[in-house]
Amino acid sequence: MAEPYLPTLITADPEAGFQLAIKMSRLGVKFTQPSAEIRAKLRPIYEESADSLIWSSQVVATNFQTVAQANNFWR
Amino acid sequence: MAEPYLPTLITADPEAGFQLAIKMSRLGVKFTQPSAEIRAKLRPIYEESADSLIWSSQVVATNFQTVAQANNFWR
Amino acid sequence: MAEPYLPTLITADPEAGFQLAIKMSRLGVKFTQPSAEIRAKLRPIYEESADSLIWSSQVVATNFQTVAQANNFWR
Amino acid sequence: MAEPYLPTLITADPEAGFQLAIKMSRLGVKFTQPSAEIRAKLRPIYEESADSLIWSSQVVATNFQTVAQANNFWR
Amino acid sequence: MAEPYLPTLITADPEAGFQLAIKMSRLGVKFTQPSAEIRAKLRPIYEESADSLIWSSQVVATNFQTVAQANNFWR
Amino acid sequence: MAEPYLPTLITADPEAGFQLAIKMSRLGVKFTQPSAEIRAKLRPIYEESADSLIWSSQVVATNFQTVAQANNFWR
Repeated sequence: MAEPYLPTLITADPEAGFQLAIKMSRLGVKFTQPSAEIRAKLRPIYEESADSLIWSSQVVATNFQTVAQANNFWR
Repeated sequence: MAEPYLPTLITADPEAGFQLAIKMSRLGVKFTQPSAEIRAKLRPIYEESADSLIWSSQVVATNFQTVAQANNFWR
Repeated sequence: MAEPYLPTLITADPEAGFQLAIKMSRLGVKFTQPSAEIRAKLRPIYEESADSLIWSSQVVATNFQTVAQANNFWR
Repeated sequence: MAEPYLPTLITADPEAGFQLAIKMSRLGVKFTQPSAEIRAKLRPIYEESADSLIWSSQVVATNFQTVAQANNFWR
Repeated sequence: MAEPYLPTLITADPEAGFQLAIKMSRLGVKFTQPSAEIRAKLRPIYEESADSLIWSSQVVATNFQTVAQANNFWR
Repeated sequence: MAEPYLPTLITADPEAGFQLAIKMSRLGVKFTQPSAEIRAKLRPIYEESADSLIWSSQVVATNFQTVAQANNFWR
């Protein structure tokens, strides 16, 4: 990863913050499984598993807490 | 998604905040599995699984923490 | 739900706060599975599963964090 | 439960706080499964399951966060 | 346990804090399963299960949050 | 471990913070399973399991919350 993947936690609005939280959740997976090929192989598994999707949403929720705090909740 | 899906974390009261937390939990799923068709196929699975419902409630609880903090707990 | 189900996060004391956290945990389930009939069918499943009970207690703990903060920990 | 089960989150020291967090974790189970008989039946199951014990410890950790904050970390 | 097992959350540095978080995670297990014999029997199970190790690390992460806050992040 | 493994939570920027969160998540595993040989044996299991990767990302998200707070969100 030559270019920066997480330059800042500050975003323009909640939506951009939510997208950042999704990106961070994927980064957490990416650094544990760096092979794009294996991740591609796993995608249809978790994308069609109800529980995997719920757990993914849990990771996003946790990362969004961090991003929202960093942005003082965009108040 | 042409229209904004998360314009603000500020809500009128705890109930509106709880509904927002539910929406955010679904958005976390939606962005991982964008196909409405597959999500519809999965719905009867998690809706009739006690554990899936508990884990869904965990995601809502986490998102509600964020929303409640953003609204200074509606104090 | 015609009557308000979450009018405030403020409670008289920690016990009332704990009851509210339990209510919120159930609301998280209720909004995902609105059918009272199906929820009733699932109840004996999670009520007799050690792990389901532990995960339920995790949801309550998360919601109680929010309620306790809202009440400034009843200090 | 006639007598108060959660009168305060304030404790004398971290150890008493940890004991309170354990109690709260059990209360979360108790209110979901009020039958002492069924809980007794489930005890040997989760007490001899490594994963159940880890998840129980997660609930205690979450409740302890709340208790520790309430006590300003006993600083 | 005659001697104190959690006298303070204050530690000299992040490493001592991380060790405390590990100790707290084990205490959460210990109080749920007090038998050292059964815990010893379970050890090889979770120590050789990838998922059990990940969940253990989650408990440590949660406890470390508490310890880090107590120590004002050792800033 | 002769050399310090967690000297500080302060990092130059969010990316270095994310790397620290990953390191902390691995430390949580390492202290529960100190054998490098067994960890190496387990790696292909969790690296090719969609759910294990999601749970790993959850641990990273939790540790990143701590690191981000310690760094005042690099604001």
